[in-house]
Amino acid sequence: MARSTPEVRPISSPSTVSCRFLPEDRAVEAEVGTTILDAAHANDIPVETVCAGKGTCGTCRVLVRDAEVPEPTPHDKRRLAIAQLAGGWRLACQHPVDAGAVYSHPLGIRAVRVVESAGLGRISLDPNIQKIYVKPSPPSLHDPRADWSLVQDELAAAAGDLDPTRDALSRLGAIGEEISQGVTVVIAGNRVISVERGDTTGVAYGLAFDIGTTTVVGALMDLTTGQEVAVASDINGQHIYGGDVISRMSATMRGPEFVERLHRAILDTVRGITTRCLEAADVRPDRVYEATFVGNTVMTHLLLGIDPSRISYSPFAPTTVDPVSLRASELDLPVLPSAWVWVAPAVASYVGGDIVGVMLSTNLGRRRGTTLVIDVGTNGEIVLAHQRRLFATAAPAGPAFEGAEITRGMRAAPGAIERVRITSNSVGVDVIGGGEPEGICGSGLVDAVAELLRVGAVLPSGRLLSGDEMEKALPGLADRVRPDDTGGEFVLTGDPASPEESIALHAQDIRRLQLAKGSIRCGTNVLLREAGLQPSDLDRVLLAGAFGAYIDPAQALAIGLLPPVPEEAVEAIGNAAGHGARMCLLSLTSRVRATDLPGHVHYVELSAVPDFQDQFGDAMGFPASDQAASND
Amino acid sequence: MARSTPEVRPISSPSTVSCRFLPEDRAVEAEVGTTILDAAHANDIPVETVCAGKGTCGTCRVLVRDAEVPEPTPHDKRRLAIAQLAGGWRLACQHPVDAGAVYSHPLGIRAVRVVESAGLGRISLDPNIQKIYVKPSPPSLHDPRADWSLVQDELAAAAGDLDPTRDALSRLGAIGEEISQGVTVVIAGNRVISVERGDTTGVAYGLAFDIGTTTVVGALMDLTTGQEVAVASDINGQHIYGGDVISRMSATMRGPEFVERLHRAILDTVRGITTRCLEAADVRPDRVYEATFVGNTVMTHLLLGIDPSRISYSPFAPTTVDPVSLRASELDLPVLPSAWVWVAPAVASYVGGDIVGVMLSTNLGRRRGTTLVIDVGTNGEIVLAHQRRLFATAAPAGPAFEGAEITRGMRAAPGAIERVRITSNSVGVDVIGGGEPEGICGSGLVDAVAELLRVGAVLPSGRLLSGDEMEKALPGLADRVRPDDTGGEFVLTGDPASPEESIALHAQDIRRLQLAKGSIRCGTNVLLREAGLQPSDLDRVLLAGAFGAYIDPAQALAIGLLPPVPEEAVEAIGNAAGHGARMCLLSLTSRVRATDLPGHVHYVELSAVPDFQDQFGDAMGFPASDQAASND
Repeated sequence: MARSTPEVRPISSPSTVSCRFLPEDRAVEAEVGTTILDAAHANDIPVETVCAGKGTCGTCRVLVRDAEVPEPTPHDKRRLAIAQLAGGWRLACQHPVDAGAVYSHPLGIRAVRVVESAGLGRISLDPNIQKIYVKPSPPSLHDPRADWSLVQDELAAAAGDLDPTRDALSRLGAIGEEISQGVTVVIAGNRVISVERGDTTGVAYGLAFDIGTTTVVGALMDLTTGQEVAVASDINGQHIYGGDVISRMSATMRGPEFVERLHRAILDTVRGITTRCLEAADVRPDRVYEATFVGNTVMTHLLLGIDPSRISYSPFAPTTVDPVSLRASELDLPVLPSAWVWVAPAVASYVGGDIVGVMLSTNLGRRRGTTLVIDVGTNGEIVLAHQRRLFATAAPAGPAFEGAEITRGMRAAPGAIERVRITSNSVGVDVIGGGEPEGICGSGLVDAVAELLRVGAVLPSGRLLSGDEMEKALPGLADRVRPDDTGGEFVLTGDPASPEESIALHAQDIRRLQLAKGSIRCGTNVLLREAGLQPSDLDRVLLAGAFGAYIDPAQALAIGLLPPVPEEAVEAIGNAAGHGARMCLLSLTSRVRATDLPGHVHYVELSAVPDFQDQFGDAMGFPASDQAASND
Repeated sequence: MARSTPEVRPISSPSTVSCRFLPEDRAVEAEVGTTILDAAHANDIPVETVCAGKGTCGTCRVLVRDAEVPEPTPHDKRRLAIAQLAGGWRLACQHPVDAGAVYSHPLGIRAVRVVESAGLGRISLDPNIQKIYVKPSPPSLHDPRADWSLVQDELAAAAGDLDPTRDALSRLGAIGEEISQGVTVVIAGNRVISVERGDTTGVAYGLAFDIGTTTVVGALMDLTTGQEVAVASDINGQHIYGGDVISRMSATMRGPEFVERLHRAILDTVRGITTRCLEAADVRPDRVYEATFVGNTVMTHLLLGIDPSRISYSPFAPTTVDPVSLRASELDLPVLPSAWVWVAPAVASYVGGDIVGVMLSTNLGRRRGTTLVIDVGTNGEIVLAHQRRLFATAAPAGPAFEGAEITRGMRAAPGAIERVRITSNSVGVDVIGGGEPEGICGSGLVDAVAELLRVGAVLPSGRLLSGDEMEKALPGLADRVRPDDTGGEFVLTGDPASPEESIALHAQDIRRLQLAKGSIRCGTNVLLREAGLQPSDLDRVLLAGAFGAYIDPAQALAIGLLPPVPEEAVEAIGNAAGHGARMCLLSLTSRVRATDLPGHVHYVELSAVPDFQDQFGDAMGFPASDQAASND
């Protein structure tokens, strides 16, 4: 049975038209006036372009069928041969879509391949970096043309007009007359960034970095296969200036030389990771053509050497939220000097390029349904996606989730209590590394409070029962309560009689967790209200980042860190920011989407919400536990 | 009496149309299909553009009158407001000229001013560098926008979408919240290269360099007035590797590290000149936003760190002849790191950017009549302009014109004989500096031979009369002839009896001059033949460069270095190459023209001319002197 092609139906609304693209054979609906190129890209149809629609590269040519071929524009005439113009070819960037038209485009140098990439799943592989092998005829006395002119002629058909860097010309000069034996041209955007002897089209690498305040992770990616070939991470070299972005910004306020110091510190970390990746994979530095970076806004400012200090005080304005492109030599990266560096855009001061990476890798704003994404940290970044609408905010949670400012708190390192289970007469703990417990980390803290709430030892108001109250309600736990003037504490492990040989959770610690979760929950509530939604409208809640991977979703629900949704709706998504950096490295389509994303996000500044105090107060309380309720 | 506006007459040829531009009120004829923008620029009508016609900046808007307003293109729609579209405004880069139409354009940020500039006469002042003062409203908690977004909004109307450099963002960050007190944005091309506190629009500098093989000259120019504020020159630091381009190329053949050494040597010279200019004029380094360079192809290759060695052997192919843009930091110039550097394009290996500068500053290819330009040096560069057609070649003259390889030859320095006058019984010489003569420089050599020819002591074949022949024809000079086995010599000054205490011109010296002038004359003859012209068709002969300024035009004609034209048609034009560099710095229109020029030049490779030997032989002879003829 012959497969029938779906009919293109005229759309009744006069503001949109419908057309079709070949060879995909896909129908596309676009607003009247949208260019053919924009319509294709909005639907992930890989019509090629080098100049991004300026009409100068000539690569976006399409054959117009089943509609009147529009009059050629000057750009059409400049870039297309007379025979092509007569045959119905036009530049897709030059003309609006026409109702019922069919546009056939060649699959060429930048054709999108879909590959499986570890951690990223199936992704489109259409990197910004292209390599083209050319074999120009040698110059002669009758045609003593410049090497670059010879190479450019060979490139023109495939890639349009390109501008070489000084470094690329110098490399071309070093190859000299051997260019007629064939050279490979490396293109980033509309610039030729290197020229290599022979056919090296099979060799191309890039780096994707996630610049965390605490940890920096870099991945060396093979741009020809989409696979990770090496990964390395290191503590952010700025750590000596403090553990969080606030202390880093305080450091920069000491003077411009401190901005420079923190700039150099992160660059040193990035350089070290780069060198380790290159050595691990045995890759030549000059075969690395691009690096992408995501990070929170303070980190990307410092990466670029921009003073971030104003982000720390009202009105919290950054210097830039736009993507920034520069050359690797400007950051002194140990790769090809002309390599391209792309720093992801941010939404706002406290919703940075890392969250744009999260939005990109979770396909937010493009998936159906209603999704909440929370990246829990010192600042909790919260994104709400409802259909194609995006809302974001940042909630200052403080360092409780990282185990800081908690009596016996510590980072999630060996010796930290990471799991707590409490019954009416026992407390069990899991310790990272399995040895003696030394303290409690963020996930252990959440667990402990959730369990205390569940058994009724902590009330929804956040108050820890006194010894007397515990004796009545939960006699099996009563000897674990150590009273003091500030609310008492609850001993998790060790001898309750010996404060030195036990680890306890203090009433103040519970209060701090309550403030932290209250802040994030308040952000969630404000976003839901902004979107006109209820928690019950949420189809899924995604937990991004390291903390999201460690936390027990049921317990996060139990303490009310997350709005009330079924437990199975909650999913940890790991390092989604880093995935975003990789996607932007491997796919120009993804990069364009990342660039567009911030413009589609409605950012809510929590401190500017009129009833913020009320909202925060409402979000502070713990949910009433079913079991505790039955104990009341 | 009211001045009547000239009527726009329809042109009979169907391949051109005529239109008019306001406010200049100038009629313009253009080929059918030419964009309005190109038609304007071809006629020096300053319709503004930032993106150079890509349709992306929106600055080239014109109001279309007296003709049908064309349908808006997608670029029109993106860049113009609905009211503008409805009012008849369109982007000049998007539409072909229409017969009879009148295009009215706003005079805005890049409006061309005509100024008097020392040495350059009246020139148009429309530098690539623009400064725009903006005063954005401060961010607020309800609109906590990034500084760059605020600045960009202010710029958008005037300058379209612009991309900031890392350095510009870093400077913006350092200004911080004071941006609301006003900042000045510095724009080069479509990039923002700096941001300065307050209104600094009145302060803008650039550097124009002429990189000679022997001497490097740099001028610091005020981009707001077009005036030179400082000039400095220095010996090219590569001189330790030899005096001419051939020896420089030989040096680079010793290995890549020698390319690097010669690259560093010229950069050191350029840096030294830059610092001296800045100090002399008391200008801050970060107020220098651009530098332009002209030089022969070997010098521009070495400036950019490109191995030039292949230029020295057949087929004499360079690595590039295109203009090259880069950042000042790539050359480590002591100016604003993001400052723009523009290196002029070349025509061919031996017709470099310096000659493009000469063509530009002499308005070649645009002036009426037929002009020959000769830049005499080790390589004589020759350009023939006939109406709008351009022909160029390079003639290997050898170093005779620089006084080298001549028995008593020396550079044009104190002690050099620079003028010679000979009568039937006397020889008079002028010595540079007025002291005792130590040798003879190029212009003295030309003079001496021209005078010997005139009196008949040298025959048109180039042979010096023997003592016996001289005794017969010119007895008053006979005792100056010192015979030897290789043609003898003629004593110019000093005691003829004492070879040590006299300066003589040897028959071999005359032969060397004959070869040198023969080579250049051969080049001229080949170009004239290529253009189908005779020497009598030449309206003027321009002598460029230092030698052209010293040589006596009558004597240059007398020895046949120049084709036979009236003496008054010959004019020395001084450092026209350096003038070209200044024009490219001060005027984007000039730079665009310089970029276009090489494509309009028909380059003739002399060694590929089939009858080169015959042509060279014919050009070797000296013209018969009127006076000598009467003596025969």
